[in-house]
Amino acid sequence: MSSESQQAISLKKFTNFTEWFDELLLNARIADNRFPVKGFIVYLENGAYIIKRVREMLEEKLEKTGHKLMMFPLVTTEELFAKEVEHIKGFSTEVFVIEQKSEKGAERRLIIRPTSETIMYPMFKLWIRSHADLPLKVHQSVNVYRYETKATRALYRVREIPWNEAHTAHETPSDAEKQVKEAIEIYSQVLKELGISFLLLKRPDFDKFAGAVYSIAFDSWNPDGRVNQVATVHNLGRNFSKAYDITFEKKDGSRGYVYQLCYGFGYSRVLAAIIAQHGDDRGLVLPPPVAPTQIVIIPILFKGQEKEVMDYSRSIFNELKDNWRTVLDDREDITPGEKFYYWEMMGVPVRVEIGPKEILEEKVTLNRRDTLERIQCSRSNLVEEVKKLMENLMQNLRERSERMLYKLIIDATTLEEAAKAIDNKCIARVAWCSSIECAEKIKEKAGGEIRGERYDIAEHPDRPCIACGQQAKTIIYVARAY
Amino acid sequence: MSSESQQAISLKKFTNFTEWFDELLLNARIADNRFPVKGFIVYLENGAYIIKRVREMLEEKLEKTGHKLMMFPLVTTEELFAKEVEHIKGFSTEVFVIEQKSEKGAERRLIIRPTSETIMYPMFKLWIRSHADLPLKVHQSVNVYRYETKATRALYRVREIPWNEAHTAHETPSDAEKQVKEAIEIYSQVLKELGISFLLLKRPDFDKFAGAVYSIAFDSWNPDGRVNQVATVHNLGRNFSKAYDITFEKKDGSRGYVYQLCYGFGYSRVLAAIIAQHGDDRGLVLPPPVAPTQIVIIPILFKGQEKEVMDYSRSIFNELKDNWRTVLDDREDITPGEKFYYWEMMGVPVRVEIGPKEILEEKVTLNRRDTLERIQCSRSNLVEEVKKLMENLMQNLRERSERMLYKLIIDATTLEEAAKAIDNKCIARVAWCSSIECAEKIKEKAGGEIRGERYDIAEHPDRPCIACGQQAKTIIYVARAY
Repeated sequence: MSSESQQAISLKKFTNFTEWFDELLLNARIADNRFPVKGFIVYLENGAYIIKRVREMLEEKLEKTGHKLMMFPLVTTEELFAKEVEHIKGFSTEVFVIEQKSEKGAERRLIIRPTSETIMYPMFKLWIRSHADLPLKVHQSVNVYRYETKATRALYRVREIPWNEAHTAHETPSDAEKQVKEAIEIYSQVLKELGISFLLLKRPDFDKFAGAVYSIAFDSWNPDGRVNQVATVHNLGRNFSKAYDITFEKKDGSRGYVYQLCYGFGYSRVLAAIIAQHGDDRGLVLPPPVAPTQIVIIPILFKGQEKEVMDYSRSIFNELKDNWRTVLDDREDITPGEKFYYWEMMGVPVRVEIGPKEILEEKVTLNRRDTLERIQCSRSNLVEEVKKLMENLMQNLRERSERMLYKLIIDATTLEEAAKAIDNKCIARVAWCSSIECAEKIKEKAGGEIRGERYDIAEHPDRPCIACGQQAKTIIYVARAY
Repeated sequence: MSSESQQAISLKKFTNFTEWFDELLLNARIADNRFPVKGFIVYLENGAYIIKRVREMLEEKLEKTGHKLMMFPLVTTEELFAKEVEHIKGFSTEVFVIEQKSEKGAERRLIIRPTSETIMYPMFKLWIRSHADLPLKVHQSVNVYRYETKATRALYRVREIPWNEAHTAHETPSDAEKQVKEAIEIYSQVLKELGISFLLLKRPDFDKFAGAVYSIAFDSWNPDGRVNQVATVHNLGRNFSKAYDITFEKKDGSRGYVYQLCYGFGYSRVLAAIIAQHGDDRGLVLPPPVAPTQIVIIPILFKGQEKEVMDYSRSIFNELKDNWRTVLDDREDITPGEKFYYWEMMGVPVRVEIGPKEILEEKVTLNRRDTLERIQCSRSNLVEEVKKLMENLMQNLRERSERMLYKLIIDATTLEEAAKAIDNKCIARVAWCSSIECAEKIKEKAGGEIRGERYDIAEHPDRPCIACGQQAKTIIYVARAY
């Protein structure tokens, strides 16, 4: 084990994740979990800000690739909800229901969206007439509601889930396949810009989305070993278009059902991944693109030189504020040390310290949050240096997280080894024959869920199935999950 | 009556508003009203885009004035909902309710927010400890849900209402008063930037927000004479802080209840006002800040010169696209005339026509959507000219709408005159003695609602009460309303 990974394991987030995380949520003004309805949380200003930025980053990419923003209702009718058989099976036990008397006194039930297929696709039926209407690509950023029966957990497992969902319709299966690739590329790009590392996995058939032909998932690593599914892409084939009767006139004049996809990107889970993958014992470490404050300037006041230091600080502030979200912390009732402590907890990427020495030497002292390194830089070069530093910091966050992901993956050849890896908060990589019996055995003996096989690369099994010893068909990843 | 107003009255939007509006919603891709749950509509790409832009314009101003974006849950408990007596009286008949069995089998009812006081203020109680925590200013852009018993109407009167709501808490009544002014200023600015004219009215006591000390409303004019309340600002005094026990330690060490405000800005109603105030018989006329397409370029192809015209069009497109949302309509299957028709309906502020003549003379022909004027401009001056044109167009929309507002206000000295004005789709301006009896009489005889007195200017009655003939206390505005 390298020294970096030993250091990581000694971090509180690895040894006592729940306490570390919950404390940070409230102290760093991310979320307040005290709202008196289970699974419903309040996103405080920093949590809401980060989600807003992530949303902007994602929506920009969606719109550049031709996805149209629309806004669909919160509710659907029981009749519409029930059209796709597998879908209703998968979701019916976990929907919130509004019971109401209609104007005529009859009882009516409205289903609150657990996802929006059953709300959007009746409209798709009205909109799609011919091949000229295809592809249709829409998206919206909304909350969906799922009555989770498992224990709820702030950001990871909530009943009110902020996400972006995109839904597309296509002429041919190969157009749909291309769309799967585009969706994966968009989500991968956003996660990359946030420095979040993940495994891109094709879920086993028994764990695909209710109504899908197949499902691809983005599983990000988490310090407590439970992988965190931050996004999914589902190829729906014609399952829904047949149920909702969405047909189009083809170029040759005949009619056919459209091929569909849906994909979702979970804002609260991405927020959780940002906190969990990058944070350390001092608190948040925020990627610059989403940090509410990117630079904090802290004047170190010495008796008799207060004015010089404040003037210099203000001029540095003016130089930086047009390029970065910059705060000059001029509070007088707390010490510079307390300010360091506070802004480190808040995860501000770069801290600028200014004292008499800096003024004398026409310098600035920069502190980067990821490595806690101090860098002297000449004032004339400041903007350029900070720009480089921000890029470097972002790259370091990304690479550090990626290295950790691969350290957490443990090759296991026996169920005992797999169980041990999972007990050690790791992800077990094992060979599997693809049978349901062995899947159940793996789950039971190893204590983790089969998350699926890599979708981005082909991994050929070089050993027999971990459960039955017969020839393996695939390499799969097994882990506990949220 | 001036010729402009005669022309306005002859417009289809004045003579047959409902048909004009409903057709436009679907044709200009604003909204689709065919979703099978009453009062729930789908916002299509242009409606969703305009709302997104309005939201950005508003949120930017809120954040600049220290309002923090947060995200609060959709639901509250029955117990929390019932704490403020007037509030529950005002809203209890129109809330959507989720009925559910708890894990222990007990029935529990969750109330879906008709507005978020009962969700936010229990959290305010946890967050506010001392004067140092004040003012607290938060906002969120969300949907609220009201089970309207009146007829629903797309954008104007829906059961799923997209809006921004801001909530603030203050130390003193005068801080709260100052906040009323700030809120009004923010909303007025956004409406001004959209060219929407309105009356700023203090609602009569019997029509104030449930739980407020007083309510200020922004009533925009509508072609069918029903005023459209687009925003409201409520001074809540200490009504809610006493109900939710929100106290703070004052500078002198004693404890007191906070003074509160809430204010809301309705996105779907502002969208309706943009369409209704600026549109004409050809379709939408969109203010540049929110137009999904700000400039459309239409090449006029002549046989043998297709390539020159397309090349010139493309180079004009490249000149404009960095400053404005520009579309080059190079569709080959429809005529330039059909393109003119289409983009006029979509409300694009500026159309650029390019044919061989323009190339020869190194010119560009601009068409402004508001006045339908054609302007020749030399190519070398293009960006400057378009910039001026956009500003001029925006100013014209604003002034035209404002002139119409004041034309629609009719001074009435008898109830018959008031009734006639309201029948003529106008707003009656009358003197009132402030008694409930006379209010009821006015409503009954004039056929309109008392919308209140001007808040921005003091208007002193120069005539007796229109209903009883006794001394009037105030000048009020009476109109039908959505």
